Amino acid sequence: MINIQKVRADFPLISQGAQKKVPLAYLDNAATTQKPVSVINSINTFYETGNANIHRGIYDLAQQATQNYEIARTKVKNLLHAANAHEVVFTRGTTESINLVMQAFLAPRLRPNDEVVVSAMEHHSNLVPWQVLCKQCGARLRIAPINDKGEVLLDEYAQMLTEKTKMVALVHISNTLGTVNPIDEMTALAKKQQIPVLIDGAQSVSHRAINVQALNCDFFVFSGHKMYAPTGIGVLYGKAVHLEAMLPYQYGGEMIQTVTYEQSTFNRIPQKFEAGTPNIAGAIALGVAIDYIQTLGLPNIDAHLKQLLEYATQKLSAIDGVKIVGTASEKSSIISFLLDEVHPHDIGTILNESGVAIRAGHHCTMPLMRRLGVPGTARASFGVYNTLAEVDQLVEALLKVQKIFKSL
Amino acid sequence: MINIQKVRADFPLISQGAQKKVPLAYLDNAATTQKPVSVINSINTFYETGNANIHRGIYDLAQQATQNYEIARTKVKNLLHAANAHEVVFTRGTTESINLVMQAFLAPRLRPNDEVVVSAMEHHSNLVPWQVLCKQCGARLRIAPINDKGEVLLDEYAQMLTEKTKMVALVHISNTLGTVNPIDEMTALAKKQQIPVLIDGAQSVSHRAINVQALNCDFFVFSGHKMYAPTGIGVLYGKAVHLEAMLPYQYGGEMIQTVTYEQSTFNRIPQKFEAGTPNIAGAIALGVAIDYIQTLGLPNIDAHLKQLLEYATQKLSAIDGVKIVGTASEKSSIISFLLDEVHPHDIGTILNESGVAIRAGHHCTMPLMRRLGVPGTARASFGVYNTLAEVDQLVEALLKVQKIFKSL
Repeated sequence: MINIQKVRADFPLISQGAQKKVPLAYLDNAATTQKPVSVINSINTFYETGNANIHRGIYDLAQQATQNYEIARTKVKNLLHAANAHEVVFTRGTTESINLVMQAFLAPRLRPNDEVVVSAMEHHSNLVPWQVLCKQCGARLRIAPINDKGEVLLDEYAQMLTEKTKMVALVHISNTLGTVNPIDEMTALAKKQQIPVLIDGAQSVSHRAINVQALNCDFFVFSGHKMYAPTGIGVLYGKAVHLEAMLPYQYGGEMIQTVTYEQSTFNRIPQKFEAGTPNIAGAIALGVAIDYIQTLGLPNIDAHLKQLLEYATQKLSAIDGVKIVGTASEKSSIISFLLDEVHPHDIGTILNESGVAIRAGHHCTMPLMRRLGVPGTARASFGVYNTLAEVDQLVEALLKVQKIFKSL
Repeated sequence: MINIQKVRADFPLISQGAQKKVPLAYLDNAATTQKPVSVINSINTFYETGNANIHRGIYDLAQQATQNYEIARTKVKNLLHAANAHEVVFTRGTTESINLVMQAFLAPRLRPNDEVVVSAMEHHSNLVPWQVLCKQCGARLRIAPINDKGEVLLDEYAQMLTEKTKMVALVHISNTLGTVNPIDEMTALAKKQQIPVLIDGAQSVSHRAINVQALNCDFFVFSGHKMYAPTGIGVLYGKAVHLEAMLPYQYGGEMIQTVTYEQSTFNRIPQKFEAGTPNIAGAIALGVAIDYIQTLGLPNIDAHLKQLLEYATQKLSAIDGVKIVGTASEKSSIISFLLDEVHPHDIGTILNESGVAIRAGHHCTMPLMRRLGVPGTARASFGVYNTLAEVDQLVEALLKVQKIFKSL
């Protein structure tokens, strides 16, 4: 079980925000999470006592920095249950990881009339790269449809998988609807036909156990900043057989083996994909965030988030005029909703005055909004430090919104 | 003038390193610089009081984060004397900035038999991207030669510039030799023929005044971590006319305008080039590093570094058996050298025991090593916090190296 007061005390922005005149209820965790003091301190410690460039220096400071950076890689490997640490590439985040796979893996092998399959609930970052590539290649992007609850129609998805399909890219948990996709089943369906599968774990890796070997996906991507780590660091997991066969993504120092004025050969994985000085402090801090999550325990975090989701669903459903958008049977700690005819931005603005931070808009899923026939939604999304009392604060603020708009 | 004791006190790693049993002389600033407390604190402050995702949130925290991120962009604009803040794109660093230009600017316009011109002293990051692209396109990469002092032969460079030349990419200050290239003159020669010019300012922006408008370069790139800012953040300056015409580099959230399942349109600059959540804390801290540099004053920093270079050159030259590699008439605070027949790595290893952190090897300039007929060099490079006493520490340690190897 989560000791919620202890957890809240671990997060400076949360504990200080709660003491403000209008206490802060930070409910925008699907956009980015707050950072525990151990993560913040690790950045400090690195710059105050351990900063050096990595992989190239022979003095103590550089050796230590290199070691700490590689320890972080091993922590990611362990978190994902990958076979090898060299299957872990540090990137800026989910978006860069997907673009890397699009460009260095799929682009060289996609031919006219080939197909790429994504779901109807993808974040723009797992839609637009494939869409652009398909257009360039004369290939076809196919959208696995969803029902009105926000669940992928598995039969229709399965029928889309043919010998034409060269890639399947699926979000694990929808950042807009909270839908938890059955990625085990969906991946297995694709792998049965030897179709490479990429899983976007941006919303899942902070609270769900991931085993990329059991899942048998080819790529798994996520961002640090949505799992209590800093901005500017993320991960591409790729099966070694793919990473080794892929061309580099960016060219420069560290990713080369030998260079002459005429030609170059390239380094082993994962260095081949880490051109230039990486976000060293960010990677180390990501490792510390993983430590934090694992100390709390993924099942405990997930149980806490589930409790918040159930309570919020019950409380919001009880408000006359609230419509919850996304009612999948398997949902995670994200709840999108509408309130009467109030524009989501107005909801967000008024909630802000009550100290409630939620997101309003299309959540980087414009086509999904159109599919569901809404211009946008208000979205509350929970982190490990959120409380039932903060859900109450959200509900009270919504009643205030309703009152304001009914009086107009 | 620099108050060196005050400056050293500003850098925790430097002031604490000096108090060690074997005091640290950190002389590897061309690889990465240490960070002043104001920069470190800005990261803390962001995560403790101001962390939110940017450009999308309507609550106070998100608005404030967005504002701070955009203020940092304006600080970069002012540092470079750019015409507009939207000409400043945040990237991971120099390497990514160059790869972005290679891919989004040059790749679509390079044709067989076209030419790209670089100098013989480029870092791999400003050589390999162009080399790979030229190979892909059937174009030719031309290397402006240097003399044995490490100076570009300007006449030969000028003769290389023809109607075939589609890009010139030049390092401002060589990370290996310390050569300060006459980029005003070299850029003017290219611009006279309307050839686009990229300047790699990784080693110059921390101590030289840059005016991209007066210089009239098309692109100027640098890394934060070599100018007292964190790792994982850097800059691409590009003339608006180019950035607006260029295709995107990565696809995802933030860089789009509208998305349907069928197609997408893209955002204005600079957002068009900043797909996904950027390194928000890193960008803000880069702004603080710029404040720090400007408070000290670029001419003061440069004068201090020049004094260190002159003193080190004089002291090293006085050691029988030292050969300085790179003796351009215009040099910056980087000094590469050889000592008798001792392998540079052995120099580095033994210096480490005396607390002196230098770099040994090819410094990501393998072809330059071959051109100069050396397997690698030992390299000392100075930062604003280095002292003449640290140069003495280097010299004494080198004498110890000599003694050890002569006794073998």
